[in-house]
Amino acid sequence: MKERLTEGHLLYGGDYNPEQWLDRPNILQKDIDYMKEAHINVVSLGIFAWSVLEPAEGDYQLEWLAEIIEELYKNGIYTILATPSGARPKWLADRYPEVLRVDETGHRNFFGFRHNHCYTSPIYRKKVAQINRQLSNRLGEHPGVIMWHISNEYGGECYCPLCQHEFRKWLEKKYKNIEVLNDKWCTTFWSHRYQSFAQIEAPSRRGEPLLHALNLDWRRFVTDRTIDFAKMEIQAVHKNGNDKPVTTNFMYDFKGMNYAKWKDVLDVISWDNYPTWHKGSERETALDCALEYDRMRSIKGESFLLMESCPSATSWQSVSKLKRPGMLHAASMQAIAHGSDSIQYFQIRQSRGAVEKFHGAVIDHYGGNDTRVFREVTALGIDLDALREIQGSRIHAEAAVIYDMENRWAMEDSDGPRNENMYYRETVRKVYEGLRAMGINVDVVDMEADLASYRIVAAPMNYMYRDGYEKKVREFVASGGTYLTTYWSGVVDECDRCFIDGTPYHLMDVLGIRSKEIDGLYEGEVNGICPVPENSAGLQKTYQVSHLCERIDVTTASTLMTYQHDFYGEEPAVTCNAYKKGKAYYVGADAEGSFYRDLLQHIVCEGGICNAAKESLPEGIEMTLRETEDNRYLFIQNFNRTKTKVDLSHYPGELLMGQREDTIPALGTIIIKTTV
Amino acid sequence: MKERLTEGHLLYGGDYNPEQWLDRPNILQKDIDYMKEAHINVVSLGIFAWSVLEPAEGDYQLEWLAEIIEELYKNGIYTILATPSGARPKWLADRYPEVLRVDETGHRNFFGFRHNHCYTSPIYRKKVAQINRQLSNRLGEHPGVIMWHISNEYGGECYCPLCQHEFRKWLEKKYKNIEVLNDKWCTTFWSHRYQSFAQIEAPSRRGEPLLHALNLDWRRFVTDRTIDFAKMEIQAVHKNGNDKPVTTNFMYDFKGMNYAKWKDVLDVISWDNYPTWHKGSERETALDCALEYDRMRSIKGESFLLMESCPSATSWQSVSKLKRPGMLHAASMQAIAHGSDSIQYFQIRQSRGAVEKFHGAVIDHYGGNDTRVFREVTALGIDLDALREIQGSRIHAEAAVIYDMENRWAMEDSDGPRNENMYYRETVRKVYEGLRAMGINVDVVDMEADLASYRIVAAPMNYMYRDGYEKKVREFVASGGTYLTTYWSGVVDECDRCFIDGTPYHLMDVLGIRSKEIDGLYEGEVNGICPVPENSAGLQKTYQVSHLCERIDVTTASTLMTYQHDFYGEEPAVTCNAYKKGKAYYVGADAEGSFYRDLLQHIVCEGGICNAAKESLPEGIEMTLRETEDNRYLFIQNFNRTKTKVDLSHYPGELLMGQREDTIPALGTIIIKTTV
Amino acid sequence: MKERLTEGHLLYGGDYNPEQWLDRPNILQKDIDYMKEAHINVVSLGIFAWSVLEPAEGDYQLEWLAEIIEELYKNGIYTILATPSGARPKWLADRYPEVLRVDETGHRNFFGFRHNHCYTSPIYRKKVAQINRQLSNRLGEHPGVIMWHISNEYGGECYCPLCQHEFRKWLEKKYKNIEVLNDKWCTTFWSHRYQSFAQIEAPSRRGEPLLHALNLDWRRFVTDRTIDFAKMEIQAVHKNGNDKPVTTNFMYDFKGMNYAKWKDVLDVISWDNYPTWHKGSERETALDCALEYDRMRSIKGESFLLMESCPSATSWQSVSKLKRPGMLHAASMQAIAHGSDSIQYFQIRQSRGAVEKFHGAVIDHYGGNDTRVFREVTALGIDLDALREIQGSRIHAEAAVIYDMENRWAMEDSDGPRNENMYYRETVRKVYEGLRAMGINVDVVDMEADLASYRIVAAPMNYMYRDGYEKKVREFVASGGTYLTTYWSGVVDECDRCFIDGTPYHLMDVLGIRSKEIDGLYEGEVNGICPVPENSAGLQKTYQVSHLCERIDVTTASTLMTYQHDFYGEEPAVTCNAYKKGKAYYVGADAEGSFYRDLLQHIVCEGGICNAAKESLPEGIEMTLRETEDNRYLFIQNFNRTKTKVDLSHYPGELLMGQREDTIPALGTIIIKTTV
Repeated sequence: MKERLTEGHLLYGGDYNPEQWLDRPNILQKDIDYMKEAHINVVSLGIFAWSVLEPAEGDYQLEWLAEIIEELYKNGIYTILATPSGARPKWLADRYPEVLRVDETGHRNFFGFRHNHCYTSPIYRKKVAQINRQLSNRLGEHPGVIMWHISNEYGGECYCPLCQHEFRKWLEKKYKNIEVLNDKWCTTFWSHRYQSFAQIEAPSRRGEPLLHALNLDWRRFVTDRTIDFAKMEIQAVHKNGNDKPVTTNFMYDFKGMNYAKWKDVLDVISWDNYPTWHKGSERETALDCALEYDRMRSIKGESFLLMESCPSATSWQSVSKLKRPGMLHAASMQAIAHGSDSIQYFQIRQSRGAVEKFHGAVIDHYGGNDTRVFREVTALGIDLDALREIQGSRIHAEAAVIYDMENRWAMEDSDGPRNENMYYRETVRKVYEGLRAMGINVDVVDMEADLASYRIVAAPMNYMYRDGYEKKVREFVASGGTYLTTYWSGVVDECDRCFIDGTPYHLMDVLGIRSKEIDGLYEGEVNGICPVPENSAGLQKTYQVSHLCERIDVTTASTLMTYQHDFYGEEPAVTCNAYKKGKAYYVGADAEGSFYRDLLQHIVCEGGICNAAKESLPEGIEMTLRETEDNRYLFIQNFNRTKTKVDLSHYPGELLMGQREDTIPALGTIIIKTTV
Repeated sequence: MKERLTEGHLLYGGDYNPEQWLDRPNILQKDIDYMKEAHINVVSLGIFAWSVLEPAEGDYQLEWLAEIIEELYKNGIYTILATPSGARPKWLADRYPEVLRVDETGHRNFFGFRHNHCYTSPIYRKKVAQINRQLSNRLGEHPGVIMWHISNEYGGECYCPLCQHEFRKWLEKKYKNIEVLNDKWCTTFWSHRYQSFAQIEAPSRRGEPLLHALNLDWRRFVTDRTIDFAKMEIQAVHKNGNDKPVTTNFMYDFKGMNYAKWKDVLDVISWDNYPTWHKGSERETALDCALEYDRMRSIKGESFLLMESCPSATSWQSVSKLKRPGMLHAASMQAIAHGSDSIQYFQIRQSRGAVEKFHGAVIDHYGGNDTRVFREVTALGIDLDALREIQGSRIHAEAAVIYDMENRWAMEDSDGPRNENMYYRETVRKVYEGLRAMGINVDVVDMEADLASYRIVAAPMNYMYRDGYEKKVREFVASGGTYLTTYWSGVVDECDRCFIDGTPYHLMDVLGIRSKEIDGLYEGEVNGICPVPENSAGLQKTYQVSHLCERIDVTTASTLMTYQHDFYGEEPAVTCNAYKKGKAYYVGADAEGSFYRDLLQHIVCEGGICNAAKESLPEGIEMTLRETEDNRYLFIQNFNRTKTKVDLSHYPGELLMGQREDTIPALGTIIIKTTV
Repeated sequence: MKERLTEGHLLYGGDYNPEQWLDRPNILQKDIDYMKEAHINVVSLGIFAWSVLEPAEGDYQLEWLAEIIEELYKNGIYTILATPSGARPKWLADRYPEVLRVDETGHRNFFGFRHNHCYTSPIYRKKVAQINRQLSNRLGEHPGVIMWHISNEYGGECYCPLCQHEFRKWLEKKYKNIEVLNDKWCTTFWSHRYQSFAQIEAPSRRGEPLLHALNLDWRRFVTDRTIDFAKMEIQAVHKNGNDKPVTTNFMYDFKGMNYAKWKDVLDVISWDNYPTWHKGSERETALDCALEYDRMRSIKGESFLLMESCPSATSWQSVSKLKRPGMLHAASMQAIAHGSDSIQYFQIRQSRGAVEKFHGAVIDHYGGNDTRVFREVTALGIDLDALREIQGSRIHAEAAVIYDMENRWAMEDSDGPRNENMYYRETVRKVYEGLRAMGINVDVVDMEADLASYRIVAAPMNYMYRDGYEKKVREFVASGGTYLTTYWSGVVDECDRCFIDGTPYHLMDVLGIRSKEIDGLYEGEVNGICPVPENSAGLQKTYQVSHLCERIDVTTASTLMTYQHDFYGEEPAVTCNAYKKGKAYYVGADAEGSFYRDLLQHIVCEGGICNAAKESLPEGIEMTLRETEDNRYLFIQNFNRTKTKVDLSHYPGELLMGQREDTIPALGTIIIKTTV
């Protein structure tokens, strides 16, 4: 499939909206000339084009699009063809009000925005299926069309009676008996017991927003409902026998959906990456991107597509900075380094009006090819052309970090020790950074993942243990894996119901400890953790901890660090327990990043994981390894604002990008090829 | 009644929700064992249990509760039996939508939350009365049941047509004639005149939120409506001849109701105290608690019950800290010191799910008795057992601070010199602290209180003079009392209508001054007040003032202090006027706390009030006196985080708690018993 | 007309609400005595009096008002008679619900507030016309009535079906064809194309809030609808042949309406000025007031009325400070200096109740004439009496600053380089301050203004070029004018649609530059601009720039300043281009105020504009010039908190106010009369 997609190229291009310029044929022609000049070989067409494709009900107007696809194809540019369901035409909303969403207060929205339609509405489903089939019939077999772009950035939820009905059916299928639900949801609290599934209403700030299990199941239902809608869309484009691969574009750090559930729905994972470069330090932004890239790659464990990114400044940030020279190149190469087989932009040409008119584009309102952005886009196009052999290569990781969306939903919704911020994602990032500092590939997976193939699994703040998780961990450690977990783990089950008789639930023996109490620290308040002399992990410094400190009882574990202050001063804070063939580490408090770097350096070295750097990489230096059956491609990038010293003599091989010098320049990328 | 309640014990226990564990009889049995171990002698049962007590309409299931009450009783544990009206079952809301509240925008809520029911709805009242009678008939006469806990933390308001109708009736009863209302409410402003009571609508941000007199009467109505509902509940439990005492639990610093109006409705005042220890300094938190305790005690002028408190960390604060060792003991003893005859917790056993699942409890999810919290709870239980003779003793105060909820509503609602914050409660607290620093008992009353029994009455920021108040003050001073009042007093009448012809209304002669203008100061902006040489109060320092400065005309008063800066520099700021047998002080500006301490030290010493310390107590030291006909119990507590020097040799007698040493340890409590 | 208005007096008085005191005839009598004592010669009557004028439908009660007008007139006090449409009576809203507004979510308001009525409702219009005609018939010809005060502070909007229908008609009239609208609004973006005008809905956060062209046209419609309503009101009072002049009172920095559109609707511009003196520095507050005064004067290019101001503290600010001694006088004289022919207060007598009861008044609740405020009001009355010859004199300006409300709406609504704040008004103010520092009169106009009469036009941040604007600028410069404009100009057309092929649109040749990219800077982030050696404007300092920096291509312009830092360091930042007989300056970044002072000093001196000070005036010193055919009146005011040195020997003539000394005292005003 990958080959058919790209015929051995890395894809390069972006969203293109010629329907905005149909009255200016010269602009369409100029765009193609510019695209060729910039080495662009793919565009996404048809996103939000419904009102032009079907200007009145049943009046399908697809010829203009057919001509453009053909014209592009003749010029060597492929099309990723979108279904237009991301925004509905006005006539549809006017004639069939049920297609508009109802919010949690029970009021139906007016027409407007993008995703403002009910994913349950039979009429909306029917109309979407009809236009999808039209597109598939007329355009799906064109050789220029290489993939389906199903809708656009799915998101949001609807509380209409149809959706509420589906939610009740979903619950009934899951729990079978209402008393099972009452028990698992703990509805006796505040007298919220249900007598039948028919009584259940979706969470609402005008009704019940505080029943965590209800909230959690609602969020799961929203993911399932969206997937159900997407499957309907896919079925419609494939109905006539068309079997081109399908994707849909995911969003950055989007909490509204559990993307992991899409694993088997899509042929290719793609996503839109809009980091805020030049705000904090570039290296922190790059770290955040890396985490998301690895998370996206880990959904299917395959290379993915960067479906959207910005060639210049965005228009929606509180302050939109121009991308500094070199930033576009470095940010794009990072995508490739982490497993992307494409660089695509929103957008090829800027729209003249409406909300995103100032969002950066390859071709701006001025319309020339003599702009700084166009030149940088072109230079990158040439580079990507030269790297085409990398397309399709894979990333193999022996370490994984668990970052679980359902766990996040549960933790952030629950009233607990710190309602202002639990810092879950930040903690995941510190652990991820600790592993990445050793130059190893890292998968970012959720609790459903198979752990058997890893040598190290780090699972910070696993508040919720999803069904069967603790069993999987036990087996992983028993078989020789190294497991690292932290405070606020194993506290509740899948219904956010507290485990009784001690936590972390069913892993107290594996970890050799029991959690007793957890203390919230105010912002700015700190404690420290101090090394036990001659501890087995070789830790020697005192580190700062903040936000959350757990008091633990140690049973079989050995204590590596103890608390420095407060009434639990000198009590154990970090422990390590040998369990069968493996080891299990427990970190009791929210420690600063350097603690995780030091502890994980020990763990990685002890584990002897391949492609690890000999020692911690300098801050801001990223290293990843892509490989095919024949070759290995080592990427080294510098996300500091100054040149940084890296000893490349450790890494022999052929240079595909960059220079063999003592230092890597600011925002520079080195690619070293070796043969297996 | 008190004796029947407790048979000579201080009550010790808390909310207990066995309905959450009916499927685990071993847990119920273990709980009783643990309660006995912790010297617990009372639980509150049935709060929020409606959906278990009446799982379907008319299907009353009370036997499980009867069995538990009996089992507890056999083990020496009494029951405070709750009516379940704090949250209604789903079937009730589904079948009778009128029981759910309507908000000020006119939309009816969905099912959810706790108090989300209309206090007017005839159906809700009927259903509550029915279950209350069921409880009373079946369980009310059980010897283990010592008191009725009517509903739980009443609060909130409903804007449904039924409530609006009651509001109009309430207004018509109060004003008789619509022209009287138009006149008192000043409806001519902005053309808001009414022609009939039928035209009046409750305040709403979608309608009229700015007519202060309407807002004020609405709040009064909400209090009256809630009381009317509570009386209906009480009548229902007493219907069959049951005459056990009734209480309902009040909340900390709750602005939604005028608790003073409940004086004659309840047999016992009880309340729930959830301070945020370990956030600011402990002594400031303790001061705030002291103010609330004294306010609760002053409602009926009798000892009261602490109905809820937290044995460990709460779950609803932005950051929930563990209670440090010793804090539980000190905080609990403060309740006793201020007149409580109980220490009760929310909750005996933590619930497994729903919003409060992480709220601290005597028995946590782990479920053992080998926890720090359980050990501290047990130690306190032993101490309370040893102090049982204190139960029922009273607190006698010769000084009072006026803190009036209606005054607060009016002042905070009115547009005036400082809309961002008037600091009413903070000013009350400074005055209260000034008196308490002298070690005297202080009542905290509202303007309805009888002042005749006091020697000192301090009335800061009495913006609104409730009907007859100024007459009462005049008589108080004429008879020899000392009265202290401040800027922004006597400005409006009960309808928030300004007094004309000079303020403070009708007390200008008593005070010997007239208020001319009031200046708002920005946050951070300050002025000073300087002592007049050889002033009669012996004031010698310059103090900082902020927020509000009044310019006054002095007639017969003598000036004690003058302003330091600004265009009113050197004008009078603090005055004292001799009026008949008494004295009246006027403070023109929002002075720092030490000013009130110094001025009130002079006033208290001049008044020779009994049980006053010889000199100001050290900061953080609290002193109160409880007494019976035979004995006096002096409480001295240290709310500093370090040991503090107090010369106990001034206070002879028998030590019931603590040691006779030079210092009191941090969070330490001394109790000295003397015989009258 | 002006003469008939005032018979050669400056008007002095304010809003007066005797309807609040009809039951106290002694108060009415005392008020008149006090007004005479204070030299008050005019009051505004009848504002918000509808419920007294028509207490029940059709029951008109005008005699009380007739008597008061007569009584005032006999005492030398004129009446500005208001129509009462600013707030409707309760019976009207109860009987005809359509008169109440509907908000953007589609919910109709309840009764309350002031402007809470639909400007479209036929019933509301009919009822207003009826009472207006009643007032006109009974009172309009009274010799004491000198002007109509139409409604009060018009504002707000209604989204009811009637208004939505009018909006669609308004759009159809403007665009004729729906495809024209689709094209100009760029509705193809996000598939928002309309098939007919009937499909269009007003913007709403529950529907479409992000279609900028829709938002913009809605705001234009709201202005037009309000004007349409006002015209109906005016027609009603003039129906019986009455032709007394009409005004309505505008508000300070009010963004809800484009006041410039009222130019031909009103006979006299009047407005309400409520600055927050004593908050920041007085001189900054004075500068802000000056900008608004000049904007108001420039609407008709005639003297105007200050209809409301506060004699003391307001009641609605977060902190309301007393006006310090001298402030009332200085603030009032500033109004006269900028072209006002009146000083009027809200309010003569404080109301006893409702939301504005603590708003400052000439006569306060105390009710005496022995107050500080009353004494200052009286002193000012005497001064104004002595200045009566100034009435009707005009202000002539040779420089203009463009401050355009439609431009502001567009810029602040659009997503762009800085969504948190573009600082449009602040930048206008810096440019205005630069010109005013040279002591010249400045008009503040919008893009519809005729530019031909000016020698200097400064147009900062002209994001939107309204139709024909660029042509007007071209002609202005070609004819010898000096034009100064900045970054973020000429970007979009009247429908917020981006210009293509380069910006500033159609003025690139006049300016000799093209704008390439714009960079947003975070708050606190700065760059600098450095002078090119021997630049033609004589600039010699380095200035700080922030918020926004544009990169430009210079064609024919000469570069005056270059950027100091960042990747565009040393690129052009400020340029000057000679175009035909004139010059055009371009400022690329948001420069600090002193840059504009220095650059504009050069431009003003080069232009040799009359009445310019020889050099920049000291900070805090304001200078304006009013003139008649015979005389010139130079006003010099000191808005510093200390006396300030000004060399008055440059300004010979007769002193009408103040002293010829080396310095002007704090808050002092000098008026120098010379004969032409």
